[in-house]
Amino acid sequence: MGVVHESCGGYASEPFVSLVGGYPGEDVYPIKDFRVEWGPIFHRGRLDGSARVLVLGQDPATHESISRRILVGEAGQRVQGLLAKIGITRSYVMVNTFLYSVYGQAGGERHIGDQGITAYRNAWLDALLVGTDVTAVVALGSLAKTAYAAWAKTQPAAAGALHLAAIRHPTFPESSARATHRPLAETTADLHANWNAALPELAAHVTPEGPTNLTPYAAGWQPGDLVTIPEADLPAGTPPWWRDLDGWAVRSGADANEKRATIEVTVPKGAQTWPSV
Amino acid sequence: MGVVHESCGGYASEPFVSLVGGYPGEDVYPIKDFRVEWGPIFHRGRLDGSARVLVLGQDPATHESISRRILVGEAGQRVQGLLAKIGITRSYVMVNTFLYSVYGQAGGERHIGDQGITAYRNAWLDALLVGTDVTAVVALGSLAKTAYAAWAKTQPAAAGALHLAAIRHPTFPESSARATHRPLAETTADLHANWNAALPELAAHVTPEGPTNLTPYAAGWQPGDLVTIPEADLPAGTPPWWRDLDGWAVRSGADANEKRATIEVTVPKGAQTWPSV
Repeated sequence: MGVVHESCGGYASEPFVSLVGGYPGEDVYPIKDFRVEWGPIFHRGRLDGSARVLVLGQDPATHESISRRILVGEAGQRVQGLLAKIGITRSYVMVNTFLYSVYGQAGGERHIGDQGITAYRNAWLDALLVGTDVTAVVALGSLAKTAYAAWAKTQPAAAGALHLAAIRHPTFPESSARATHRPLAETTADLHANWNAALPELAAHVTPEGPTNLTPYAAGWQPGDLVTIPEADLPAGTPPWWRDLDGWAVRSGADANEKRATIEVTVPKGAQTWPSV
Repeated sequence: MGVVHESCGGYASEPFVSLVGGYPGEDVYPIKDFRVEWGPIFHRGRLDGSARVLVLGQDPATHESISRRILVGEAGQRVQGLLAKIGITRSYVMVNTFLYSVYGQAGGERHIGDQGITAYRNAWLDALLVGTDVTAVVALGSLAKTAYAAWAKTQPAAAGALHLAAIRHPTFPESSARATHRPLAETTADLHANWNAALPELAAHVTPEGPTNLTPYAAGWQPGDLVTIPEADLPAGTPPWWRDLDGWAVRSGADANEKRATIEVTVPKGAQTWPSV
């Protein structure tokens, strides 16, 4: 027992016990537009008051539906890299604009103003931003920015003390390339320009835990730009490859219904350490 | 927010923080014989001292590798039904003989006496059985019986005060039918005879929480013999179908290596409540 493993203690204390106990279901999140069937996925990171930065993401995806923590896949690892640049390796907390994965393109836009969705999200933001040590909020994408604004209106004093970095979503390069048929290198450069512009002010509003590295992003994703999810962020006993850079969860199926119903989880090649049979 | 959801709070307090922090890895559980790559899966049920029965299972399987709690699939639902018969619906705790899924037939037999495996299991049994309100232990299968005996030798006083129901493993019918080519109805009858014989004494040694129903098992699995896993046993936000009677996780792949590497998770038909697309 030489190694001591860290893990996320979950939602054992208030207000989080009540927040996870009272999550909204299909009555609030229409199943036509949200993958309610995969359950709500609440957060990632510190719930013990040690967070200095709050990341507001959009919605959980495939890896998150299995690991039960948000921003664990590619998007999460890009964000983890961004936080590392400002010297933040542990003192953050992340929640999403939507508790369930958005199904289809327009679902997010359609429901960003829904009252029940907003009320529940604001209860989490109150818990994490009012009277806490968080000094900056990173909003990923336009829906997160809207969600933050909706909360800020209800808590003007708390919001007034926070720095907001409203930046492009970490998977903007892929979604934009698909939508516009521009090369991925170009849309990646766009994301990087956007993040580079936000970095100095963000860094200025967060007390780092360790060394910062404000070298701008350049020429695609470089080594170190993506960072593995810390062991402390996932539940106890989670396999290490669930936090790793290689993807391990995909939707699969012959048609849209099957694809909606199925996630295939595969140990990445690098983690297949058993003797071949 | 009318519904209030329950969930398993996990391992937030001692001695469980230390137990999950110090789990053994490949040095103790050889990867040739255990699916170490899917991570350790620790328990299911009450860790707050309210348990009256401890169930000692064998090893986690497919559903457990995703839900991260033991005895959740078919075997778990049969055990849940057994506990219901003696009037126990919540006041139990379950751990396994092996922390990782056994790979291959002989792995369990080969390692049941391993010192590192035994020491870690005994630390859990100490935490759950010494100075607690547990009055009976249900050992599922012969390896669990051996594991219990190994612990009892180290804690004779505590063990002396406990009733042991060493019964056949809940999936004995399937494994025995496969091994002996006897009809499943016959091997199921064998299991039921074995469980029926143990029920009266087990019931006599456990203070029920609610009504008991000691009607013997008869003629295959009847309605009520299998019981859904309680919401309180799984982590917050877990989809309801992860606790349900329909299977939802299978190993898939073209050969033994792919099968070892892959689990396919599929929302059961009955839980596919979205509008068809």
